Amino acid sequence: MKKISIFGVGLIGGSFALALKKAGAVAHIVGVGRSVASLERAKELGIIDQIGSSVAEAVDGADLILVAAPVAQTEQILASIAPHLQPGTLVTDAGSTKSDVVTAARKALGGKIAQFVPGHPIAGREQNGPEAAIVDLYIGKKVVLAPLPENAAEDVARVASAWQRCGAIIHQLTPQEHDRVFAAVSHLPHLLAYALVDDIAKKPHADLLFQYAASGFRDFTRIAGSSPEMWRDISLANQPALLGELDAYMAQLAQLRSMLAEANGAALEAVYANAQRARHNWICTIEAAEQQNRQGGD
Amino acid sequence: MKKISIFGVGLIGGSFALALKKAGAVAHIVGVGRSVASLERAKELGIIDQIGSSVAEAVDGADLILVAAPVAQTEQILASIAPHLQPGTLVTDAGSTKSDVVTAARKALGGKIAQFVPGHPIAGREQNGPEAAIVDLYIGKKVVLAPLPENAAEDVARVASAWQRCGAIIHQLTPQEHDRVFAAVSHLPHLLAYALVDDIAKKPHADLLFQYAASGFRDFTRIAGSSPEMWRDISLANQPALLGELDAYMAQLAQLRSMLAEANGAALEAVYANAQRARHNWICTIEAAEQQNRQGGD
Repeated sequence: MKKISIFGVGLIGGSFALALKKAGAVAHIVGVGRSVASLERAKELGIIDQIGSSVAEAVDGADLILVAAPVAQTEQILASIAPHLQPGTLVTDAGSTKSDVVTAARKALGGKIAQFVPGHPIAGREQNGPEAAIVDLYIGKKVVLAPLPENAAEDVARVASAWQRCGAIIHQLTPQEHDRVFAAVSHLPHLLAYALVDDIAKKPHADLLFQYAASGFRDFTRIAGSSPEMWRDISLANQPALLGELDAYMAQLAQLRSMLAEANGAALEAVYANAQRARHNWICTIEAAEQQNRQGGD
Repeated sequence: MKKISIFGVGLIGGSFALALKKAGAVAHIVGVGRSVASLERAKELGIIDQIGSSVAEAVDGADLILVAAPVAQTEQILASIAPHLQPGTLVTDAGSTKSDVVTAARKALGGKIAQFVPGHPIAGREQNGPEAAIVDLYIGKKVVLAPLPENAAEDVARVASAWQRCGAIIHQLTPQEHDRVFAAVSHLPHLLAYALVDDIAKKPHADLLFQYAASGFRDFTRIAGSSPEMWRDISLANQPALLGELDAYMAQLAQLRSMLAEANGAALEAVYANAQRARHNWICTIEAAEQQNRQGGD
């Protein structure tokens, strides 16, 4: 590719840029964003070659545009791109929700919607900003594409290829499937981790409590170190599916509360043991898949 | 010390043995436990020098006895020790709860209660058994002692000294303080992690969900890899404090549910941001403490 434009050069957009550069997959990368300081830092770090002085200039002649900003900004960013979007350019995104992104894209891009291929790289760290970007973030990671009926197969393949050059493995889900899945395995755990830390921090003896929090607490709450703005947007964007998962979890906690109140050790142990077993099987499956990816990559 | 006896030679008891041996703090270690195979493995691994053929033999002439078994077994183990407990021997434990252990110890040891110094090393891994024991498990970790009014100061100091030889840092709390603190920062997170994995594993599309679970989910649920039997015992042993924390958390989730249902982004973001800030401050504090420990150890 000759030119790529990235709207939002933080952890996700910046790591995409670094990986494509390393793969020799792109000649020129233009960065666009809200914070001039961040863009200047990204240029200093060699993540982007140029800071776009206008959307028109940034978009002109681009092979691919990646929108990697908090999902609530998607519509506005796509609307700013739309008037300048040329026929040869594809647009994709990195949003953690897809139904809302598709709605926003249809509004913003109108007749050019076929040029937009929704995507979601399943990779992250709790750090944000261009400083957090790393070249190997996507190696062996899944990228879910959620193509639209309007997308040409070859356009989907072009977006897939860019992510593959970053080392990622491509999966496909519909936007609705995507949102139900990630409500359960990502969005709900984030909400639960934030809820626990906030709950403890508000207690009068919070200092004493934090003093004895150890590695289990640290890992359990790692995702509560993530960007509050980004997770506010994700929570709202995926509200219906997240409410459904939260209700199921609250019902589960109510059951566990009854077991505990009745001192029903056998029932508690059955839940704990089922969880331990399921997690063990899951870990074995992902470790086998990682092993296979490594062998496939040799 | 000439002789130490360890009841329960798994991760906790085995790591205590390895660390004391490395420090040259003990000449002879006897292991006692339910599983002959585990004890034989512990002997093969050089964790213990001898498998106790009877409680009487294991306890005879010991300077220190560590009870490192699931907390529900504490009373029975201490009752088996009591008739053989000699005046020069101290007993301590590694249980994750303390109020119930103290009750059990008073019942089992009667007039010899002054020889029992309750303790709790704040260290762990999700693996269990002697294979999981590692020599440096306690380095820089906290050990909470919860002394009884009957304990002589010099006896508390002797138990503290053994843990210090393992590299641990000694803290003191009352048994009640201990249980309230750990209900919040350890026991509740374990219950929440088990609850989430079990909730997902029971869904009809569990396989699809697990396929997209990533590193955030892995860390959040790491503690759900812990021993179900051990955590059943801890949950029951600390039932009143754990119910209190669970109720507070369920109320917190109900509040977050309302914010989400009302699409109140500002309120959600305030909770998320408070949690992120509190966790960041906590991490900075523990990293500064670790830094200081390293410098102190030079």
